[in-house]
Amino acid sequence: MRFATVEYKGKSVVGLVDKAGENVTLLKGITDMNDLFRSTGKPDASGETVALSAVKLKAPIPLPLRNIMCVGKNYIEHAKEFTASGFDSSAASAADAIPTAPIIFTKVPQSVIGPNEAIQYPTGVSDQLDYEAELAVIIGKGGKGIPLDKTMDHVWGYTIVNDVTARDIQGKHKQWFLGKSMDTFAPMGPFCVTADEVDLKTGGIKCWVNGELRQDAKFSDLIFDVPTLIATISAGITLMPGDIIATGTPVGVGIGFKPPKFLKKGDVVAMEVAGIGKLTNHVA
Amino acid sequence: MRFATVEYKGKSVVGLVDKAGENVTLLKGITDMNDLFRSTGKPDASGETVALSAVKLKAPIPLPLRNIMCVGKNYIEHAKEFTASGFDSSAASAADAIPTAPIIFTKVPQSVIGPNEAIQYPTGVSDQLDYEAELAVIIGKGGKGIPLDKTMDHVWGYTIVNDVTARDIQGKHKQWFLGKSMDTFAPMGPFCVTADEVDLKTGGIKCWVNGELRQDAKFSDLIFDVPTLIATISAGITLMPGDIIATGTPVGVGIGFKPPKFLKKGDVVAMEVAGIGKLTNHVA
Repeated sequence: MRFATVEYKGKSVVGLVDKAGENVTLLKGITDMNDLFRSTGKPDASGETVALSAVKLKAPIPLPLRNIMCVGKNYIEHAKEFTASGFDSSAASAADAIPTAPIIFTKVPQSVIGPNEAIQYPTGVSDQLDYEAELAVIIGKGGKGIPLDKTMDHVWGYTIVNDVTARDIQGKHKQWFLGKSMDTFAPMGPFCVTADEVDLKTGGIKCWVNGELRQDAKFSDLIFDVPTLIATISAGITLMPGDIIATGTPVGVGIGFKPPKFLKKGDVVAMEVAGIGKLTNHVA
Repeated sequence: MRFATVEYKGKSVVGLVDKAGENVTLLKGITDMNDLFRSTGKPDASGETVALSAVKLKAPIPLPLRNIMCVGKNYIEHAKEFTASGFDSSAASAADAIPTAPIIFTKVPQSVIGPNEAIQYPTGVSDQLDYEAELAVIIGKGGKGIPLDKTMDHVWGYTIVNDVTARDIQGKHKQWFLGKSMDTFAPMGPFCVTADEVDLKTGGIKCWVNGELRQDAKFSDLIFDVPTLIATISAGITLMPGDIIATGTPVGVGIGFKPPKFLKKGDVVAMEVAGIGKLTNHVA
């Protein structure tokens, strides 16, 4: 099942998206996806059906309940390109490029924007703006100390997050929060989908900038897979329904090129995962 | 003014604490400190007055609106002791010990506990538990791109946060979130106080473990002072009423000693700031 949060008759509502991605049937009693992550029953999709083209699509989770947890350097080739770029405060040399444990940082909930909304160029703060296409895991059932073989029972589903980054700020401040958490730095969507819609073994993510394919990777190439991430985080932190874990970006970000291909105003960034859909945003 | 959040007649309520710190007068219409940070009017302290000894004192902000922002290595002598300890993933050598820009990471809101509550020993996850006494700034008026000379207009007040840390996890995962954000890792309190109650020029913070004085520093020794922190964070991130910035800990944490003095079950950690009060927690 794919769910959308849309603005309809001046209100934010949640609906079930049809196979073709053309229509959305509103859920009864659910106005926030977070209510759905907490519930165990079947959603009541007996409301009105409206064309997606007739409503404004919002981020599927417009305001996460707490900061989005993000994984750094979780694909081997990206870890190498990032460390080689000179922006990686987590590795002293190329020999340290591949992490031996998941690297986790956060983005504020208010950095989330929806499909087709503008990534604000952080004029005067950074001039090294970059994109990062990522599969994001949404936690359903909460828990602490979740054993590796039970972790997938805690996955409600997935969405796409563009982990927008100001590379200069990320490098300068050592810890990555400031360079990752600016206003509009977490485009999300287009939909939240239940776990069965994405195949972690065969699925993957692609990213285009102005139509040029920049990232194209399989989830099976993750250094730390989804079960490992959930087990690692929940070892000390109680995971909650609605927690979001952005699993890391593959090779092909702007600083991976020589010279770097930073984002500029007017650029269009699109990213796609089969089963979820395509998330497109421009820089303004 | 000093404010407390207390459990009274089975409910969480907010009150104004008297000079002696003995009684609390309940506020009308305010049950969450976050409402107070947003309001510009004078709080209506015309409710019942009860003895603090007769109610359960909670963290003044039991559930921050988003992750607590924390500053790393913000006192020179602590920056040196931390880098020398070998746990500092942000510096390659002693020559890099002193940061050139604020290092910011976060702790989840749910890691907050109140005065006298137990810091849970993270058995099986970490065996290098440490304390960090910190002055925490509470934002009143929100804003973005706040100029340095206007930053103090955005400070509602202060509290104390113990930035409890699992040193092994902090070092192993490079980014500090996991080692900083475990359940019960943010003891807070005892009170929230308005900005006039703390003098950043002459005030300071002390910390004792089992009665032994471990930390004793002046806020004037901060590498990046409160205005600089607010200006730096708000450059790209819109600050909100109720945001909490833990300003960093001075020299004297457990890993500063040779051999390190890690916390163990039964230890009592107390920290005090004149004007705020004393925050005491034990490890269980």
